[in-house]
Amino acid sequence: MILSTFAILGGASGFHASAAESNATEQTIIRNEEQVSIQGTDKIFTGNARIDRIYPANNKMRSNGTSITFEPGARTHWHVHPVGQVLIVTSGLGRTQEWGKPVQEIHPGDVVICPAGIKHWHGAAANKSMTHIEINEAEEPGKVVEWMEPVSDEQYEK
Amino acid sequence: MILSTFAILGGASGFHASAAESNATEQTIIRNEEQVSIQGTDKIFTGNARIDRIYPANNKMRSNGTSITFEPGARTHWHVHPVGQVLIVTSGLGRTQEWGKPVQEIHPGDVVICPAGIKHWHGAAANKSMTHIEINEAEEPGKVVEWMEPVSDEQYEK
Repeated sequence: MILSTFAILGGASGFHASAAESNATEQTIIRNEEQVSIQGTDKIFTGNARIDRIYPANNKMRSNGTSITFEPGARTHWHVHPVGQVLIVTSGLGRTQEWGKPVQEIHPGDVVICPAGIKHWHGAAANKSMTHIEINEAEEPGKVVEWMEPVSDEQYEK
Repeated sequence: MILSTFAILGGASGFHASAAESNATEQTIIRNEEQVSIQGTDKIFTGNARIDRIYPANNKMRSNGTSITFEPGARTHWHVHPVGQVLIVTSGLGRTQEWGKPVQEIHPGDVVICPAGIKHWHGAAANKSMTHIEINEAEEPGKVVEWMEPVSDEQYEK
């Protein structure tokens, strides 16, 4: 169940099983070195993106958290979140766009709030990488995102 | 409603009203400079702690996010989360403890998962500060934590 949450995002293997997966009823610590970096796939990204999982949904918590690093020019495909998403920009320089609206620059310390059902994308600036933490929530386990078509170069450059 | 979520944590004023508060149905960006740092109070902390709010619960999202920086020796009081909490250690050196269990050291990149109903505390090491992001969820708006007694020096030093 928890693996499927992440599989939707990354489509990759390599998740180190941890105490958090077990829905343990005690406080658990996922150590930094237990979670390995994962390469993003072209099913959901244009360009190179690295996925560093932070925490899965667990116990009564329906959110999950992931850090994503986009190399220059890299971005997600267009997508929608059924419950919503928050992005916390931690380094670099990025871009995001809601369908039908202008592309916006995002900087470290900026927070993007994307409500349920809004079609959007996010990624790096053309010449600079960007890392953000994303917090996603699911009402049904694993259903944090619906993926759509790639962001074209024309859309990205606007 | 959203202010009350944060008031429970920080008990302080100074929140810059932003688009995120309005449950806007479009993507919104909270810019870094819109959210000012808040000093923690001795109602919930021992020692000096600084609160930097990241995002409030909004729209369909029931989680909120906050960064807290504890000066050396500073820690929260004992408390319980009705839904649960995740801590993402971003810098420094910290400590956390579940009631009745040993104190544990936490390091940057470590993630602490605290399920609903578990009594715990978290803070800095004795001689080094610690910053973590915390993600809290509420089933009822604003109910992310129940505060209890301070962590004694004897408990902290163990």
